[in-house]
Amino acid sequence: MRPLIVLLTDFGLSDPYVAQMKGAILSRCPEASLVDLSHELPAFELPRAALFLEASRSHFPRGTVFAAVVDPGVGTTRRIVALEKNGQIFLAPDNGLLGLVLAAPLKGHAWDLSAHSRGQAVSSTFHGRDVFAPLAARIALAEPPADLGPEVEPESLVRLDWAQPKVTNKPAGVEASILHVDRFGNCLTNLPLVPWDHRLPPETALTMTPSLGASRPVLRVKAYAQLGKGQLGLLPGSQGYLELSMNQASAACETGLAPGDTLFLSNNEATIR
Amino acid sequence: MRPLIVLLTDFGLSDPYVAQMKGAILSRCPEASLVDLSHELPAFELPRAALFLEASRSHFPRGTVFAAVVDPGVGTTRRIVALEKNGQIFLAPDNGLLGLVLAAPLKGHAWDLSAHSRGQAVSSTFHGRDVFAPLAARIALAEPPADLGPEVEPESLVRLDWAQPKVTNKPAGVEASILHVDRFGNCLTNLPLVPWDHRLPPETALTMTPSLGASRPVLRVKAYAQLGKGQLGLLPGSQGYLELSMNQASAACETGLAPGDTLFLSNNEATIR
Amino acid sequence: MRPLIVLLTDFGLSDPYVAQMKGAILSRCPEASLVDLSHELPAFELPRAALFLEASRSHFPRGTVFAAVVDPGVGTTRRIVALEKNGQIFLAPDNGLLGLVLAAPLKGHAWDLSAHSRGQAVSSTFHGRDVFAPLAARIALAEPPADLGPEVEPESLVRLDWAQPKVTNKPAGVEASILHVDRFGNCLTNLPLVPWDHRLPPETALTMTPSLGASRPVLRVKAYAQLGKGQLGLLPGSQGYLELSMNQASAACETGLAPGDTLFLSNNEATIR
Repeated sequence: MRPLIVLLTDFGLSDPYVAQMKGAILSRCPEASLVDLSHELPAFELPRAALFLEASRSHFPRGTVFAAVVDPGVGTTRRIVALEKNGQIFLAPDNGLLGLVLAAPLKGHAWDLSAHSRGQAVSSTFHGRDVFAPLAARIALAEPPADLGPEVEPESLVRLDWAQPKVTNKPAGVEASILHVDRFGNCLTNLPLVPWDHRLPPETALTMTPSLGASRPVLRVKAYAQLGKGQLGLLPGSQGYLELSMNQASAACETGLAPGDTLFLSNNEATIR
Repeated sequence: MRPLIVLLTDFGLSDPYVAQMKGAILSRCPEASLVDLSHELPAFELPRAALFLEASRSHFPRGTVFAAVVDPGVGTTRRIVALEKNGQIFLAPDNGLLGLVLAAPLKGHAWDLSAHSRGQAVSSTFHGRDVFAPLAARIALAEPPADLGPEVEPESLVRLDWAQPKVTNKPAGVEASILHVDRFGNCLTNLPLVPWDHRLPPETALTMTPSLGASRPVLRVKAYAQLGKGQLGLLPGSQGYLELSMNQASAACETGLAPGDTLFLSNNEATIR
Repeated sequence: MRPLIVLLTDFGLSDPYVAQMKGAILSRCPEASLVDLSHELPAFELPRAALFLEASRSHFPRGTVFAAVVDPGVGTTRRIVALEKNGQIFLAPDNGLLGLVLAAPLKGHAWDLSAHSRGQAVSSTFHGRDVFAPLAARIALAEPPADLGPEVEPESLVRLDWAQPKVTNKPAGVEASILHVDRFGNCLTNLPLVPWDHRLPPETALTMTPSLGASRPVLRVKAYAQLGKGQLGLLPGSQGYLELSMNQASAACETGLAPGDTLFLSNNEATIR
């Protein structure tokens, strides 16, 4: 199989940085297929990058190497790590980027590849091209990560202090937050489909109260097309989380919600279990 | 030959959606070359997507598979179709996206592949990744579309109510509209080169009157470089339509024209035939 | 080795133009790997494009073909040239785009390939797709440039009137300018690392005075992480030039500097040699 390397950075597509990473990879592994996961992340924004990685990995084949470089700590002593999970390798600075991929249950191995950035740690400002790309190429060429650095406990890797939904009794409901607003204005909540698609079944009548703003009804639906004009829905999103959405309209514009905002979902009929 | 799949969506490049489509394709067809036709279309805008597809197809080799996913009706009963034309396959929701590729004379075949989205029709909101990408991979791997769904009449596919130029006698001229404004401010009209590059020959003196705004002269030229500073030209564009353009300046900024706007081109010397 | 073609244009990613270039290449050279260097350059901006090309070329392997199409003179008599340097081929309009790649010492060869655009010179507005892409494919397929056009002296190629740093004695210092501001707000100066990383050593205390605005101290450092909150640094950038930068903040926002601006760096302790 052709080596497949997936790139996730906050470098943008206007500067030559992503292309230089690709040049560094193809110089070493000319047969590689390269896929851009995203390069337009707001600079240094780790939680969203962690979400993109976790939401995307199952759609790529075994053997895929993910090189994720959102790295506010470049030039510091933060580690560079490789994590193996389900036959895929994730290469990233150890700053929380792999926090969601790491979520339990984790069977897998991890390695500390930091030694490869020594010497370049002080003078270079572009580890993506000069450290991560060469490492990604070597791993894609089937060099075992164990040959590139010592094994470490996956539990030692940095996790993000990730927002967790909070169930309350008075008033009965769940406090959630917005992880991401996509191009269409869909608001991805921090309510994973398992278990929340089950705990908030379609027949539930919900009220949504943003931390700033007035309450409004939310329909629990399965697909955009079930929503009428102007109706706000909560549906099982394609990224593995419940999403606040509208049909051919922007739920973000309608509600004013943005990443990081919290909201309260309550159920008038019964306590959310 | 390596399989070649061209992607056209309104998903944008900031979200992980395009990458997930590519992962779904490469999981099934690891040898595929993938080309992004555009992902930055305004959400749900069908006519411009249809134009991009028609203007681009002849520049790709026989055997190319186009997967076009601009799909406001996702989750409804709209069909998913494959169209074969000139040895290329076009995969799209049957909502008008293929309306210009379908334009007569059409020799070709079409198939209804909707059955592949059944079961996913209700729960999934991301047919691009979960339905279109796997179908594109199978077709790229040379699986005959006839094995994927029943053949249908190409005439049964949805066409766009596409703007047509209108010739008038009093006053003598042609009413056209703007299909697209590109990055450089060139305004693509709905006047196809055949026959309009012939009907409005270079020596014609033209006057352009936007539906809102004052008349101004337009030079019929063959290339940007024939235009002086501040001059507005009508030239045979690279996308197969006459374009209102300026030399190293934006005709859109100069005229205020935007997609959907209409304009009237008149010829002081003779009736436009 | 697989042919590798790197594309640099000002076409943007919203229009179908880049994809049509890729289609024209893959129609002729289906095995090619294609890398986007950048397509988001401001329209017709040559100096920045020249910088991107020069800063990136060493990160790609020998045999790489660069097709650079920023071409305000399309349709005029400007030449189309191929330059060979260090085993790579650079294909561009002869308008200064190759000005920095051409910088001495130049060992290499150049060819005039303009004859391939004759006949298309008048009628076509899209040489990127119709002239450059086919030429790039032929060169990537190992056709010798000498078979495509007559050899010319590299010295005959157009150079940019590129901003040069100017050392002054009273007051003692160096007048520099900003070539590029990247996504993170780093301001790339026109001070190449050789010799300026040596002439302005880390222990130097510097004062930076923009042509508009007040003087402020600048720390000479090796990496972002050496800068405290709010401190402005001058560090050896990854693109081969000294950069004005901040740690996880935008030096461009902090200083108001933009491409083309000049600034004066002075050293209170000693004359800059």
